Amino acid sequence: MDDAPELKALLDHYRAMPPVAAMDVDIAGADGDSLRLAAPLARHVNDKGCAFGGSLVSLMTLAGWGLVTLKARAAGVDADVFVADSQVNYLAPLFADLQAEARLADGGDWEAFASDLRGRGRASVNLAARVPLPGGGDACRCRARYVAIDRRPGAAARVGER
Amino acid sequence: MDDAPELKALLDHYRAMPPVAAMDVDIAGADGDSLRLAAPLARHVNDKGCAFGGSLVSLMTLAGWGLVTLKARAAGVDADVFVADSQVNYLAPLFADLQAEARLADGGDWEAFASDLRGRGRASVNLAARVPLPGGGDACRCRARYVAIDRRPGAAARVGER
Repeated sequence: MDDAPELKALLDHYRAMPPVAAMDVDIAGADGDSLRLAAPLARHVNDKGCAFGGSLVSLMTLAGWGLVTLKARAAGVDADVFVADSQVNYLAPLFADLQAEARLADGGDWEAFASDLRGRGRASVNLAARVPLPGGGDACRCRARYVAIDRRPGAAARVGER
Repeated sequence: MDDAPELKALLDHYRAMPPVAAMDVDIAGADGDSLRLAAPLARHVNDKGCAFGGSLVSLMTLAGWGLVTLKARAAGVDADVFVADSQVNYLAPLFADLQAEARLADGGDWEAFASDLRGRGRASVNLAARVPLPGGGDACRCRARYVAIDRRPGAAARVGER
């Protein structure tokens, strides 16, 4: 999944969404287990001169969404990916450009995700995301559950639980 | 707090923030206990034609932030307001313009908030927010804790806990 064409396709997918285009999101890195996104502070600055909390959550949500999308494709499934729920902790103000990194949360399992998605047409997975501070530590942390559903008509209806 | 000049000032405050200006946020209503914001779907549409999850959280976060800001001003304090943590549940896709409503969460207390803010220079409060669906029910719900800190130098340092 660190394949350049896959990341290029993901970036095009991001930028086709008006709210994401407005965020000026870029892909900062991917290593097969994590995905990092970047966005300039100037687009996300609040009334206190630091990054707006909603922007931090949006960037973490997008990083997780992108990682799940890449993992679904790696499993051979073209899936719609949704965020289902999340818990966010805002820890410190960020006075620098934004980065958000998503990876599997403790106890998560990509093999089970791929197996469920291929076999049942849908799967869910828990991810952890963070927005690092330039000097160490995190500005914000998030844990979120994502659901992927096979796009092919009927694929996810086989078990009658869509 | 349903005073028109206060709401006009709040709207100016929102729109001075680049990420909020990009969201095209408007104030849809306020009644002293709640604040409702609106934003057009076209600015917030995702790859599935419905509202982007990050936009739903951002709008709920802003509604809560605005309500706390209004309540701080009503208490006579010019305060910086921060979101501290939140739990979000995404319940159903929204294929319509966005509205987000924030009000006090169960067990919350505006009088204690005002008293703490005036007496100690800082206060926290739990809010509940929702994004309603046009046909009834909610697209998204959120519970979040906000912290307000008196902006005057030294005001919040009196109890040494800033």
